[in-house]
Amino acid sequence: MTTTPTDTQALSLPLSRAAKHADEQPISELIKMALDDPALISLAAGLVDFETLPGQSVAPIIRDILADPAGAKAALQYGTTEGFAVFRQQLYDHLCALDDAQTDVYPGSADDVVVTTGSQQLLNILAEVLLDADDIVIAGWPSYFVYTSTLTAYGATIRSVDLDEHGMVPEKLDRLLAGLSAAGQLHRVKFLYVVSYHQNPTGITLSAERRQQLLDIVKHYSAKAGHRIVLVEDAAYRELTYQGEAPPSIKSMDDNNQYVALCQTFSKPFAPGLKTGYGLLPSDLVEAVKLSKGGRDFGSSNFNMHIISRAMSSGAFAQHVGVLKRAYAAKIQATLDALEEHFTGIDGVSWTDPTGGLYVWLTLPEAVDTSRPGPLFGHAIKQGVLFVPGVYCYPNDPTRTAPTNTIRLAVGVPNPKQVREGIARLAQAVGQVLG
Amino acid sequence: MTTTPTDTQALSLPLSRAAKHADEQPISELIKMALDDPALISLAAGLVDFETLPGQSVAPIIRDILADPAGAKAALQYGTTEGFAVFRQQLYDHLCALDDAQTDVYPGSADDVVVTTGSQQLLNILAEVLLDADDIVIAGWPSYFVYTSTLTAYGATIRSVDLDEHGMVPEKLDRLLAGLSAAGQLHRVKFLYVVSYHQNPTGITLSAERRQQLLDIVKHYSAKAGHRIVLVEDAAYRELTYQGEAPPSIKSMDDNNQYVALCQTFSKPFAPGLKTGYGLLPSDLVEAVKLSKGGRDFGSSNFNMHIISRAMSSGAFAQHVGVLKRAYAAKIQATLDALEEHFTGIDGVSWTDPTGGLYVWLTLPEAVDTSRPGPLFGHAIKQGVLFVPGVYCYPNDPTRTAPTNTIRLAVGVPNPKQVREGIARLAQAVGQVLG
Repeated sequence: MTTTPTDTQALSLPLSRAAKHADEQPISELIKMALDDPALISLAAGLVDFETLPGQSVAPIIRDILADPAGAKAALQYGTTEGFAVFRQQLYDHLCALDDAQTDVYPGSADDVVVTTGSQQLLNILAEVLLDADDIVIAGWPSYFVYTSTLTAYGATIRSVDLDEHGMVPEKLDRLLAGLSAAGQLHRVKFLYVVSYHQNPTGITLSAERRQQLLDIVKHYSAKAGHRIVLVEDAAYRELTYQGEAPPSIKSMDDNNQYVALCQTFSKPFAPGLKTGYGLLPSDLVEAVKLSKGGRDFGSSNFNMHIISRAMSSGAFAQHVGVLKRAYAAKIQATLDALEEHFTGIDGVSWTDPTGGLYVWLTLPEAVDTSRPGPLFGHAIKQGVLFVPGVYCYPNDPTRTAPTNTIRLAVGVPNPKQVREGIARLAQAVGQVLG
Repeated sequence: MTTTPTDTQALSLPLSRAAKHADEQPISELIKMALDDPALISLAAGLVDFETLPGQSVAPIIRDILADPAGAKAALQYGTTEGFAVFRQQLYDHLCALDDAQTDVYPGSADDVVVTTGSQQLLNILAEVLLDADDIVIAGWPSYFVYTSTLTAYGATIRSVDLDEHGMVPEKLDRLLAGLSAAGQLHRVKFLYVVSYHQNPTGITLSAERRQQLLDIVKHYSAKAGHRIVLVEDAAYRELTYQGEAPPSIKSMDDNNQYVALCQTFSKPFAPGLKTGYGLLPSDLVEAVKLSKGGRDFGSSNFNMHIISRAMSSGAFAQHVGVLKRAYAAKIQATLDALEEHFTGIDGVSWTDPTGGLYVWLTLPEAVDTSRPGPLFGHAIKQGVLFVPGVYCYPNDPTRTAPTNTIRLAVGVPNPKQVREGIARLAQAVGQVLG
């Protein structure tokens, strides 16, 4: 037996290929910058509003759970991988209510609901169970960049489809798929990723008419592909609709519960600290997702599910959504007012007009390079405002080059006054760049 | 544009290779059997004791967190991927205290602590970041089967090392590695998995002397392999030591914080419903784990971390560990007493003598097939007792065949009276099989 310790100081870790290919999110650097300089107004952070976190509403809920010995035991014990049945029924009923549907006509059932550690975990699992290396995912141009970088880490190639003010353009999706079909590449296309309400990063909501169109296109090319092309509908910002009626989910149009994986969360409409998301999935996808989740953690925090379950049944959740809508509506309005005040009349400038969510998308003249190494970013920091360069929000589509003149404005954290001041500072910086 | 919906009822889902290879845990069937028949005494479930869940201790903690507006906001907002700094320092200090060490001589620092959704998530991430298909992991024979099946799902080949009453046998580990080295296979060996305290499924604790020996062997063969062979130390049951002093962790012997990934949890010593685990890892492994976790969920429930953080600082955690130790010690003692009463004198029968944890391992005469299709299982169900066939607990080592005459007895859920009754019933069933 040879057990002499050897000098192995210089030995490397045997990291897997997946670990070697993992990249840090570029936004991490921005988060550090904001933390390092509290005077900076951050229009970059994807956090939610601090002032409206529901401490007051969850306190009595938790007190009640823990005061009941049986309830306390149920909440503090291990749960099941998919979440407890009563909660999944509540979530299913909540989706029906959002879509103004009866449970007996709505796609799927509570059995098709899976609870996850935020919707990010569900999105990540969907990538794992649907993708092999060299598969293709179709996403918006731009799109939610944390997820598109996850897709790239899973080895997928992303092909992208433009958005206009009504969301992803169906004719362009059809053209892309027709081209892939003609090139014999349709077998590689595994899913379409759509953020259907108040999209991150643009704030754009997919119109009702286009929802059915996108689903029809997916079905049409599924038949050609010989497998279902899944439509992953990310509806994280759905409840945060401040203006008009939110359109029905694409899921509500998925008659036989076959095509659409609807992903939602309580992080945006309630509290990120409880880290609870959920999905309503085609039944055969539920099985695959549960197996993956079983290996990952065999179930998210049961305690947090019990808190949210009770918040839903007591009405505290619905009430809190009302509070959030008023608070965020004022921030989005402050953003639009300030853009109107400071950017009107500059040639080549435009911005989106979100009806909800946390984001406004600003397009500057092509000459203004908003990227991290470009001149605007530094001027903005000097003026005391931080933004996410839009170039980070375009997926890594090998056939396209991302524009460098856009900006994501995120208004979750700053109050309306700070939003107005931040945009005034941004206008100063843009003025300096335009000379 | 062609958007005619097509009849695609029969189309399959495009599941990835990983999803197609995922298998349901065999224990899922046992859990369903226990739920379906409440009269069955389950000595199978890995759940914790219902009577000692800490509802009373967490109630005032949560009330205090939420009564302080700043504390409530911090707990309900998003956290960081690795967990908040104060909590990670507490965890590091807790590990130092468990090892009777000063923080200035203990390996690593609070920066090397990562908080996860239970220790299962950490174990799963370690598999992801360390393993490519066809790599080799070395594990105990038997071992914690949920994790060894995760390793198999990641494509690893498991090679196994026998345990005796002092845990994994160093000479056998050395011989296995020497053989792999001679066969030119050492480059495939990425880590050694050891459950170092009150092992699941046997209840055996690795002796203090062997801890240093295993680490020395790993270092020795790392030098030969040209990369670090990581020692993944799963210490889930560490705090639940009822008899004598728990030996120091293998981590405490890892002078330069290079080799040992120590994984612990609050599920066993506090409350599984809070689903919080953590690890102390080599610094370069921390980076890889954080990147993976970022993509998976960018951080576990911040709220639950705040609850546990306060439970640690208030002393409620330490106090609760005391309560659990008394409760579980009585169950383990009841198990050993009942085995003594009913199995003494049967030729070929032996059992382990755990000093903590939730498990006792029973070996029956070779003629008694304890597997799911064997005669004992059915007799036991008729007698009204459920157990985990030991064959499930042996990893899928392609060079070995698992014995079929062992049983894992888990005493987390039943009370001492039920434990005694369950073992009496099991003895009846064994008597029937032995004729």
